[in-house]
Amino acid sequence: MKILVINAGSSSLKYQLIDMETEKVLCKGNCERIGMKDSRFSISTFDGRHMKKTVPPFQNHKDAFQAVTRILVDKEYGVIKNKDEVAAIGHRVAQGGDLFKNSVLITEEVKRGIESLIPLAPLHNRPELDAINACQEVFGTSIPEVVVFDTSFHSTMPPKAYIYPIPWKYYENYKIRRYGFHGTSHRYVSHHIAHLMHQPIEDLKIISCHIGNGSSITAIEGGKVVDTSMGLTPLDGFMMGTRSGSLDPSIVTYIMKKDNLTPDEMDNILNRKSGLLGISGYADDRDVINAEIKGEPHAILAHQILYYQIAKYIGAYAAAMNGVDAITFEAGIGENQPELRYEVCRYLRYLGVKIDAVVNDDTVNGKEGKISAFDSQVSVYVIVTNEELMIARDTRSIVDKLTYAKTEDKTVVDPEDI
Amino acid sequence: MKILVINAGSSSLKYQLIDMETEKVLCKGNCERIGMKDSRFSISTFDGRHMKKTVPPFQNHKDAFQAVTRILVDKEYGVIKNKDEVAAIGHRVAQGGDLFKNSVLITEEVKRGIESLIPLAPLHNRPELDAINACQEVFGTSIPEVVVFDTSFHSTMPPKAYIYPIPWKYYENYKIRRYGFHGTSHRYVSHHIAHLMHQPIEDLKIISCHIGNGSSITAIEGGKVVDTSMGLTPLDGFMMGTRSGSLDPSIVTYIMKKDNLTPDEMDNILNRKSGLLGISGYADDRDVINAEIKGEPHAILAHQILYYQIAKYIGAYAAAMNGVDAITFEAGIGENQPELRYEVCRYLRYLGVKIDAVVNDDTVNGKEGKISAFDSQVSVYVIVTNEELMIARDTRSIVDKLTYAKTEDKTVVDPEDI
Repeated sequence: MKILVINAGSSSLKYQLIDMETEKVLCKGNCERIGMKDSRFSISTFDGRHMKKTVPPFQNHKDAFQAVTRILVDKEYGVIKNKDEVAAIGHRVAQGGDLFKNSVLITEEVKRGIESLIPLAPLHNRPELDAINACQEVFGTSIPEVVVFDTSFHSTMPPKAYIYPIPWKYYENYKIRRYGFHGTSHRYVSHHIAHLMHQPIEDLKIISCHIGNGSSITAIEGGKVVDTSMGLTPLDGFMMGTRSGSLDPSIVTYIMKKDNLTPDEMDNILNRKSGLLGISGYADDRDVINAEIKGEPHAILAHQILYYQIAKYIGAYAAAMNGVDAITFEAGIGENQPELRYEVCRYLRYLGVKIDAVVNDDTVNGKEGKISAFDSQVSVYVIVTNEELMIARDTRSIVDKLTYAKTEDKTVVDPEDI
Repeated sequence: MKILVINAGSSSLKYQLIDMETEKVLCKGNCERIGMKDSRFSISTFDGRHMKKTVPPFQNHKDAFQAVTRILVDKEYGVIKNKDEVAAIGHRVAQGGDLFKNSVLITEEVKRGIESLIPLAPLHNRPELDAINACQEVFGTSIPEVVVFDTSFHSTMPPKAYIYPIPWKYYENYKIRRYGFHGTSHRYVSHHIAHLMHQPIEDLKIISCHIGNGSSITAIEGGKVVDTSMGLTPLDGFMMGTRSGSLDPSIVTYIMKKDNLTPDEMDNILNRKSGLLGISGYADDRDVINAEIKGEPHAILAHQILYYQIAKYIGAYAAAMNGVDAITFEAGIGENQPELRYEVCRYLRYLGVKIDAVVNDDTVNGKEGKISAFDSQVSVYVIVTNEELMIARDTRSIVDKLTYAKTEDKTVVDPEDI
């Protein structure tokens, strides 16, 4: 069974085709700059064929999907003979709100649900829904499509972690609560580390640090999320590439008054001009590293703040779970920045955390494994996260149940039960 | 030497007269509802005389100071013969900004400094400056007056703790940074617990939890603050009686857009309608306790959130200092709510924290002392905090130097050096 995994943004569409018998990625690529003049299209195949080029403009997500269907069966770059070999499609959607606690088969009702959550995540849910609709136009509705939510892994959080101490009516009427994001990554990582540690996930207290351009930290006890740093939106938590993380709310209103800004203008500053960029002038952590090496004081400070805030979150979540067995670092920065991992763990010696500095330095560029010393009381791992595989696995699992139901009962199972 | 300590709000003026030879409070009281029709005035003396009554309206702080000078020498309630026995006056001021890292003798320049910081703390610095001016009118300028800032103990924080990850220009131009408050209380507590533990403060890592109607937690290493939960304003940190604490900043802009609110209206909601009040309907923790006993689910949840957030701060600050030797609970709730202390410490067993439940239950109503079990790896104390004594001690210390300088050099020492 081959499953196509889709991760759509407002101007991009990432795709991966995965063979589920081997869990091998047959090909992956990106449709970039959708709706712009200079659209770009790329593919890399399992056997080393690569292409990346500027293409006639993708007007919309439908154009992009058509390019994907063509390339999958292309003579030069294709990996399948016929697009019917794609057995199912899995979509990532950021915000599942209170509606979706698990991955689901896409129905008209599910699409209405995703649409109803647009106000909570306008920059994500709207293009993701557009992509689902475009995909159904191109592939037809006979092929099962599944949606996997960034929030659903976090739905086990207790109210003490997800209720914000503001007037209750905002939770009741506006659904303002902590939802959390990167759930698919944190879920993959928590299962994978239990596997690597040869321990049942039910016995583990894990703190998963997904550190990339967007970052979140999640406390996972017995396989269930008990707390996570992102909140109503992906702005919550700690410093990211261009995002501030959680703040004294008075700062928001103070700057708005001083500079006479609208809420949208303020949002833009906190989402796009803050974080590493706000302090150091660089949004990309690799640029901050280079500037730090050159001795730029603001780059040094930006990293000090980032490492310190991560360490404090780990400390807080150790309290949330009354201890920690394993800490993981994943995603762009987590997988490739040994200094961050080393400096964060230096704060954690009181927990018995000890890093093997040599192994840590060596665990970059797609390597994963344990970086804690043999006598560390907490296991520390670098994990190469894989949200696409998780989406593919969920898609397969739902499609399998559907097929089973069809075979056994000759009826289509109620999607609500899946 | 007798020192009068003043703690002024916009409509109140608390006073204490302290004999510095014994550090005994000779009398204390409050002028309430200044500027309102039904002003109230109270005094309690060291020898058990009490009075509290409605009085002809205090139009302003000057009226209140005149009432204080009269009562101090009153036949029935007075504790001194002549107001000249007041050797010096110490004032509490909330916001010292970047200008005041220590307590200072009041000069015209100092008053201009306090005035310049009004934008950062309009609800505090303005009435406090009014009170200083009124006090000088009533007592004359020949008596030395000293100001002790709520922020100054926190001035040792490193930039990684006080810089918010927002565009740098806001720190440079608007002085937006973490300042912290309750500094006088945290300073008193940290010195007092070192004394109780018979250990030099230089050797201790202390987490001081000032839990009252307003609350803050401070990490103090070697006698110096390394981090604190309140920030630019006293809204930052964790849930309080009516304040939200730190939030996903998107919540602020989201509610403003939904309800078309101004920044001031939003500030009001987050400062006065959130926290315990927002969740449970009760701002006073004693009311939350009663509602919890009756089984009201929102009161139970409000406490769960509060205890959880405090535990997470303690966990975070253990990471900030790479360990913790002592945890203190002080202020209205900290001193009188054993359940809070017990439930918070239950999260902290991984740090080796053990509470003696019987001693904990018994340490209320002005008692202080150790509440951790004999084999706890972290000492936990209840401390009866005493900001007024700290203000009096600072005042005495500055006046002593002034007197010494006058005696020795026959010159007035430069206030900058004090």
